[in-house]
Order: sequence, then C-alpha cells, then structure tokens
Amino acid sequence: MRSAEFVPPHGTRVDINDRRLMKRIMALGEVGGLPGGGCNRLALTDADRDGRNLVVAWMRDLNMNVAIDVVGNIVGTWQVGTGAPVMTGSHIDTVRTGGLYDGNYGVLAGLEVIETCQERGIEPRRPLAVGIFTDEEGARYAPDMLGSLVYVGGMLPETAHDVIGIDGTRLGDELERIGYLGATPCPGVVPHAFVELHIEQGPLLEVNQVRIGAVTGVQGISWQEVTIEGQSNHAGTTPMHLRKDPAFAAAKLTVFLRDLATRLAGNQVCTVGKIDVHPNLTNVVPSKVVMTLDVRNTDESILQSAEADIARFCEELAVAERVRIVRRPLARFEPVIFDDRVVDLVESVARDRGNSVQRMPSGAGHDAQMLARLCPTGMIFVPSHGGLSHNVNEHTDEADLVSGANILLDVMLRLAGTNF
Amino acid sequence: MRSAEFVPPHGTRVDINDRRLMKRIMALGEVGGLPGGGCNRLALTDADRDGRNLVVAWMRDLNMNVAIDVVGNIVGTWQVGTGAPVMTGSHIDTVRTGGLYDGNYGVLAGLEVIETCQERGIEPRRPLAVGIFTDEEGARYAPDMLGSLVYVGGMLPETAHDVIGIDGTRLGDELERIGYLGATPCPGVVPHAFVELHIEQGPLLEVNQVRIGAVTGVQGISWQEVTIEGQSNHAGTTPMHLRKDPAFAAAKLTVFLRDLATRLAGNQVCTVGKIDVHPNLTNVVPSKVVMTLDVRNTDESILQSAEADIARFCEELAVAERVRIVRRPLARFEPVIFDDRVVDLVESVARDRGNSVQRMPSGAGHDAQMLARLCPTGMIFVPSHGGLSHNVNEHTDEADLVSGANILLDVMLRLAGTNF
Repeated sequence: MRSAEFVPPHGTRVDINDRRLMKRIMALGEVGGLPGGGCNRLALTDADRDGRNLVVAWMRDLNMNVAIDVVGNIVGTWQVGTGAPVMTGSHIDTVRTGGLYDGNYGVLAGLEVIETCQERGIEPRRPLAVGIFTDEEGARYAPDMLGSLVYVGGMLPETAHDVIGIDGTRLGDELERIGYLGATPCPGVVPHAFVELHIEQGPLLEVNQVRIGAVTGVQGISWQEVTIEGQSNHAGTTPMHLRKDPAFAAAKLTVFLRDLATRLAGNQVCTVGKIDVHPNLTNVVPSKVVMTLDVRNTDESILQSAEADIARFCEELAVAERVRIVRRPLARFEPVIFDDRVVDLVESVARDRGNSVQRMPSGAGHDAQMLARLCPTGMIFVPSHGGLSHNVNEHTDEADLVSGANILLDVMLRLAGTNF
Repeated sequence: MRSAEFVPPHGTRVDINDRRLMKRIMALGEVGGLPGGGCNRLALTDADRDGRNLVVAWMRDLNMNVAIDVVGNIVGTWQVGTGAPVMTGSHIDTVRTGGLYDGNYGVLAGLEVIETCQERGIEPRRPLAVGIFTDEEGARYAPDMLGSLVYVGGMLPETAHDVIGIDGTRLGDELERIGYLGATPCPGVVPHAFVELHIEQGPLLEVNQVRIGAVTGVQGISWQEVTIEGQSNHAGTTPMHLRKDPAFAAAKLTVFLRDLATRLAGNQVCTVGKIDVHPNLTNVVPSKVVMTLDVRNTDESILQSAEADIARFCEELAVAERVRIVRRPLARFEPVIFDDRVVDLVESVARDRGNSVQRMPSGAGHDAQMLARLCPTGMIFVPSHGGLSHNVNEHTDEADLVSGANILLDVMLRLAGTNF
C-alpha cells in the first residue's frame, strides 16, 4: 500500500477546513430545520429537494460532475487521475424528527475532502466521488437504504418507483415531482473502493472513551412479528388455571429473549420494541397480543441459532400456555463483513492522527453495507453524545467531526493510490 | 326459619311460568337489539329509556307501586304483607355489545316471582320489591354500580349528576332528558333483605358441571396503573448491558404477577390486561411502558399482602433494571361478604329443588354488593356458556334460567317469613 501521494511537497500534514465543514453542516441543517433544533427532511419531500439542490450547487462550485440516476441517487465526481473512482457518501434524507449529522455529515465531509485537495493542489491518482443515496432512512418509503440497494443492483428501479409511501404517495411520482428522476442507469458505476464516514448512533465509543470506530461490518438483522392468540376472559371471574393468556405468554417470550441475548453474549442484541394488546382493557384477560422481535448478530451462524431457539421456545410456550403462536418474518439481512484492507487502513490512519481506535461492528444499517457488494468497503465512526440518533438532540462534538473528516481525507487518498 | 307460608293449600310446589319469563327476556332484548344478536342499551340513552318504559309498564300491569329516585333507580313494590320489603333486582343497562341476560335476567325474574305469587294466590308476609339500578355497567358513566352506590348512600346524588360520560354528556342532564330524574330521595328504603339473581359471567359452574352458585361475596379489587420509564435507544447499536428497557421490566412484572397468583392460590387472580408501549417501534428500545394490574381476592388481608408484594417487587425491579417505576391506584374495593343466613338459604333452597350447588365468590361486581351495606344480602348464580359475558354471544340455557327464577321465588318468600 503506497501512501506518499497525498503528502504535499512541503511535507506537512494536510487538514480539512474546520469552519467550512461546520458551516455546511449548519446550512444544510437549516433546510427543513425544526423550531427547537434538529430537522425534518423525509425522502423526496420539498425539504429533501431543497437539501439536494443546496448540496448539488456546492458540488458544481467544486467543478464536480453531477450525475442523477433513475432512483434519484446523486453522484458528484471530481474528475482527476484515472480509473474507477474512490467513492465516499451517505444520505441527506432524515427521519421526521432527525438530527443534523446522521448521513449529512458523511456527504459534507466528502465535499470537504475534495475542496481541501483542490485548494492544496493535491492530485489523487483516481477520481474522487461523493454519493448521496435516496431514502436511506426508509422513514417515508420502505425499505431503508433503498437508493443504495438499487445502486448496487439489489432492486430494480421500476420496483423502487412503485413503492408506496406512508403518505400514500408513489416513490417514482415524487422523484419526478421534485426534479430528481435522473437518466443515469442503475446499477451504477463500480467504485475502486467505498468508505463512509458516519456518526456511531450508539453509545459504545462514548462509553469506552474512544474517538474513532473502525467499522468491521454491519450486524445481521432478523425481525419477526409474533402473534399470540389466547382467549379473552373476565379478569375477575376466570380462575388462573382456566386462562389462555397471551399477555402472559408475551411476557415469557420477552424474558426469554433477554436470557437468550445474555447467553449468546458478544454482539448479540435482542429487543421487544412493539407490543399491541387486544382488547387492551384493565379488567379483561387479552384475546391477542402482537409483538415484534428484533434480533441482531454479526455472526450469521449465531443469528440462525438464535432464530432456532426462539422458534423452539414459541412452540413449547404455545403448548404450556394453551395459546396459538404464529411467527411472521418482517425482515432478514445477513451480516455484512467489510474488507479487512479498508478496515485496517481506517484503523492505521486514525492512529497515525493520534486517535484512540476501536474495531467495532455497526448495529445500524448504512449505505456502505450495500456498496460492500460492489467493491472493497469500510466505514469510519465518530462518537454520538449519549448514543442518541434519530432524535433532534443528536450531537457529535466539533472536534470529533473534524477528526473524522481528516481521517476520511487520508483514507480516500490512500485508497486512490492502492491497488486491490 | 319458617318456610310454610308459600306452600299453597293443596301442598304442591309452585313454579314460575317458563314461557312468560323467556318472552319478557326476549322482548326486552329487542330494545336496542343488535343485528347479529345481543343488545346495546348504554345507560340513559334512548334505548335505555325504551327498556325502562317497557319494564315499568310491566310493573304497572302487576299493580306494583313504581318509585323513581333522584338518580333514576326504579323500585317497583308489590304492596303486600307488612314491614320492610324483601327486595330483588339488578340492572337493565348493558355494555355497547352486551347480551340479553346480564342484569335483565335478575330484574325480569323478579317480576316473574311477583306475577307467579299473584296468580297462585300466595300472600307473602312482607312487600316484595324489584329494583332496577341505574348505570350498573359503568360503560357510559364511571364508576360502575353507580345507581346502587347512590341508593345505599355511598355517593351523593349531586355528585352522580355531575359525572361526565364517555360521550361528554352529563349524567343529570341525560336522566332528565329521558324522563327518569325522579323525586324519591336517596339513600333509599332499607329492605328487609336483598337477593340478586344473575348469570355467573364466568366459567366455574360450567367447568364444574354445577347448576347453581350460592354466592358468598364479591372479590375485593385492587387496580393500579404502573408506569415504567427507561431510556429509548437504537435496538441495533445499544449493547444489552447499557439498556434501561421498560418493556423487559414490564415483562418481568407480568411474570411476577402470575407467580404471585400461583403462590397465593385459592381465589387469587392477577391480570395484566392493558399494556401501552412508547414509541412502540420494532427497532427502538422503548422509552416508556404504561400497564395495568388487576388483582382480586375475597380476603382483604391476602389482597393487602399481594399489594405489598407487588410494591416490593417494583422497587427491586427499578433498581435492577435502572428504570423508574411509578404506581398509581386506579380503583380499590374491599371484598364484600354476603350474609351467611342468606347464602345458606340460597344453598338449601337450590338443593331442595334438586340442583347441584357450589358456594362461590363473585369475581365480577354486582349491585348486591352495594345493597349488602344496608341489609342481609345474597346472590344466586346460574351458569354462563363458556363463561362469556359482556358479549353478544352471552348465553344461559333456558332450563338454568327457569331453575334460577324458581329458586329466587322460594328464597324471596322464605326471606319474607324470616326474622333476622
């Protein structure tokens, strides 16, 4: 791996422009900004269009070539060097009450990397590209990471166009309405390598007092909906031994999930986040409970074994409590493992710049997990205050934001000089 | 206890008129009748007024003196014999999707007792009265058993008038509107004794294949709302050991409640019927769970000990799971114990008529529990198919309905001849 290319002639280290990065983050945060802080730029709304227009204008200011593809992904490329580009990027759509950093930070740090190179006269060996992927949040159109999924060929553009949003709108219609139904085909250009800079959206770096996460991959996700049907009865007149109580069965399953996570340890997480009880009255033994299980692990075989344990427990529970239990898969993604060479590079660059580093999986989904299907891929995490994200109070210290962008600069330039 | 009074001169047993009883039950069931069966006569609606008018007309046909009191309770009295009346009665309001028997059966069996005596020339030693108590269900105006509570002096009429219903109406206004704001004061006449005939609304008689329940009292009820506050977090990025998960704490509490009921055994029942999770999303560790606990026992000291166990468990749980738990009482009624002499009488009369009998507490609330504050009181239960009640499919076999009415006849006549 050669790394001399990005050291300017005079030998000093190049840093990005802190003020310019922060100014762009704040300016984009004002588009769809919420009164008390945070912002709302649901995918393909007017606010998303205004955000896109702003960032595209900045790309054009940097003489980048801007391509809009058939699902509205924007790829801005600085045409320099030769061959396939080194790409970074993320998304600028937000959840309804989102923060200023989730996604936006990675995109704007990409622009900052390019502007820094341009003003310092650094000429990377390969083009540098910044991608803005459509509808990463999935908060308006399911599934999440829709734009990057189409970019890598995991979903047909026509299928994506026909997705109906939570507001009844058709994704293709909204793309056209806001002027971002482009002509560039999907699957898109295969990058030389892809690296995404993102806030952690979890508490680990903060808790461990570590500055940078070298992301090793993305947890596999198994979502299922469990419907438990028992028998509705009067809470006063029905003796305990005659009950078929789905609320009790749901509680047993929730406790089992925690025990399972504790037993599997490591990166295993299990969550019961949604519980709907029918008829949901104080004095009525419920007739039905519908609940969700969110089970994640970085190891596919452990994830499968967890799923098998849950299935077995549900069967036994149904017999013991005389209830009917039906499980329905809601989503299933295998774990994604990032390219060791990119992960190593992120780690060494971060250390070179004097940061403490932790290799860690991502618990959340990111566009990088889709790009990993196309090319060597990695991610850089910076700490999130209190682990908060998808929240108007989402916050990362400026020093960490700047530090992450500097690491992105070094990593992209090194990747441009690396032959995989 | 003397019982000769009601045996007619020729010495044969007197029975009520099956056909007439069933005809009245069906006729009343048509008032507010629902298309698929069952009926909807929420308290003080037009349908309730029509039901009242029908039953009052029947009372007048029997030359009963009809008194309407200040909360709309109707007491029809057959002025015979001397002294305080032997009273029966129940309610004719229903829940929104109610059955034909809950309440109505007891009132109409009362009329049938009086008509039978009148046509057979039986002259009880005391007046016989039939009460129709306002808003027993509490489905429109809280609390339930409101009319009988006011009748016995447990609530001021003015307080009752100011109760606002689920539809925003004021009880006093609706009473006046339907023409049932009467002049008879409350508390009402103190009966010599009170006995209420009712469907079980639970499964025990059916499961035990017993025909008649001699009701020993009404379970004490302790309702509380438990609010558990944790910390909302990303289900993927938050390691198990850093969570403050109120859904898990709620599950532990639900399992504890079951264990508590099993340990206390006997008549102890515990129910978690209502669970509301916030924000209730698959991939978010909840911030808050609000749930209800319904705990009942016939023994006040055991009920208090159950409450203390729950309080202690919640304190330990809050510490162990690092959540905040706030408990709020929603309702608390001490157990009601019926008069042994009345319970014994019900049991012996039922056996004399060839029925299997079970002494049992009532798990549901009934007007009789209010009247028990005024005079010797008891109840007669007949089986409910599948324990169903508050349901359009509520059903009791005609043979059981007739059997219960015959027992009511004998019990009322014996009570009229009994000096307490």
